[in-house]
Amino acid sequence: MEESDTYYWKGVAMRMADQVERAIAPLVGTEDAGEIIKMGADGTPTKLIDLVAEDEAIGVLENTMRPVTIISEEIGVLHINQDGDDEPRIIFVVDPLDGTSNAIRNIPFYGISIAVAEYIPGSDLPSMKDVRMGFVKNFATGDLYWAIRGQGAFMNDKRIESSSQSSLERTSLGAFIYGTRFKRVDNICRVIRRMRILGSVALELAYVANGSYDAFMDLRENLRIVDIAASKLIVEEAGGVVTDERGEVINGLLNVKARTSLIAAGNVNLHRKIMQTLEVI
Amino acid sequence: MEESDTYYWKGVAMRMADQVERAIAPLVGTEDAGEIIKMGADGTPTKLIDLVAEDEAIGVLENTMRPVTIISEEIGVLHINQDGDDEPRIIFVVDPLDGTSNAIRNIPFYGISIAVAEYIPGSDLPSMKDVRMGFVKNFATGDLYWAIRGQGAFMNDKRIESSSQSSLERTSLGAFIYGTRFKRVDNICRVIRRMRILGSVALELAYVANGSYDAFMDLRENLRIVDIAASKLIVEEAGGVVTDERGEVINGLLNVKARTSLIAAGNVNLHRKIMQTLEVI
Repeated sequence: MEESDTYYWKGVAMRMADQVERAIAPLVGTEDAGEIIKMGADGTPTKLIDLVAEDEAIGVLENTMRPVTIISEEIGVLHINQDGDDEPRIIFVVDPLDGTSNAIRNIPFYGISIAVAEYIPGSDLPSMKDVRMGFVKNFATGDLYWAIRGQGAFMNDKRIESSSQSSLERTSLGAFIYGTRFKRVDNICRVIRRMRILGSVALELAYVANGSYDAFMDLRENLRIVDIAASKLIVEEAGGVVTDERGEVINGLLNVKARTSLIAAGNVNLHRKIMQTLEVI
Repeated sequence: MEESDTYYWKGVAMRMADQVERAIAPLVGTEDAGEIIKMGADGTPTKLIDLVAEDEAIGVLENTMRPVTIISEEIGVLHINQDGDDEPRIIFVVDPLDGTSNAIRNIPFYGISIAVAEYIPGSDLPSMKDVRMGFVKNFATGDLYWAIRGQGAFMNDKRIESSSQSSLERTSLGAFIYGTRFKRVDNICRVIRRMRILGSVALELAYVANGSYDAFMDLRENLRIVDIAASKLIVEEAGGVVTDERGEVINGLLNVKARTSLIAAGNVNLHRKIMQTLEVI
């Protein structure tokens, strides 16, 4: 992506985060917010607050008057301002509201995830490796975590680095473990210092990027690629490591159906210890 | 407690919440905040941010110029403005900063817990049943949860009620489970809808009071009575149920050593189902 394009689409992404934040604000903590409106493109029910968020995100892209594709939970794939038959070269992979159930219950941990990818029409289907920029904003605190590939990661205007903690006994771990195979995670839950389940994977990965968490894992194999497209880049640009539960690179296609497991750590050593404790190496 | 006293000490508690919030604000998210300063009265290490919070809380009580006792993690028991040999009739049971590790890592989930108890000097040692008012404030959001015994529970100016959800399959459960006997909680983690570990028991109980959580449990038998003195009353005044893991009333003494397990639910039916699933009934 050329520098002028990077600059332009970064501005669009930040505008999207701000406008979606404002659009959903009146619904936070209300019963209306959780009303089920329809079924989303990924096969899960769409709640009112999700729909309001996605409509606002689409509107921001329409207003650019430039060709751009949005990939999002509820709508699937939508080409916007398409010019002739060519598919747009810019793809926004958006989770307009990650942590929906927190937003509905007014638990201060929900926000937007936006990955910007560049696609060469006619080449392989777009995948995680095409993501150039990532933005994750916690609407409850206003903090924006973001990265541009090759240029490092930031929280608001400040450069961030992932944790250098490599001792499991001193690790703060975010983990989605309910509904998973308990025996497998039991080993790790017994040794770590502290565990959290905050309920927004995009934001919890941002926490790995800035060191609030030392590591994060989700072994349910049920994590949507689109939900981690932005925050995976942010973790990596902050110096962290992200793989699936087998220790392999996550390079899924950018579509709403693709799912994965995930193990993220602030550094290689901690990542290796987690993998060993899970007995997958 | 007479009405004029209730009114007066409620004002003191709210002032304490505001002042401690302001005092610790510059430390939130800093490394300095987590520096270990000394060992607390309960035998755990005291961090700088905890000490700043407690000093501020004590200062607020000193400024009342009235006899009052404070019971708090770091200092133990302190009689303030004592008049002759008589022990003060009013006891503030304070956790000046619950969720310390969240505050240090800038995870928006930390705050103060203040219980106000009335003690008749010469009678039995003060216990949970003597608590007349409870206040819990989330410093990251500014929300204040509070209750006066017999007068209901409130979030800021709004009356709150606990959840009427009685289906385990639809339950949002807050739970401290790491470091506990996994087999015991496995049954429950598999059936519930959603689990959270946010890292502040006082605030998570406030979430049971206002329905953000349907239930909360901590089976580690390691929960300090002083940390739940305020929020237990708030849950009960909101219509919820709080017991220990055997289903018994928690009526521990108001001191920094007393510890318990805890199962809180928005209603009796859900509480019973949780107890049954844990196979303790």
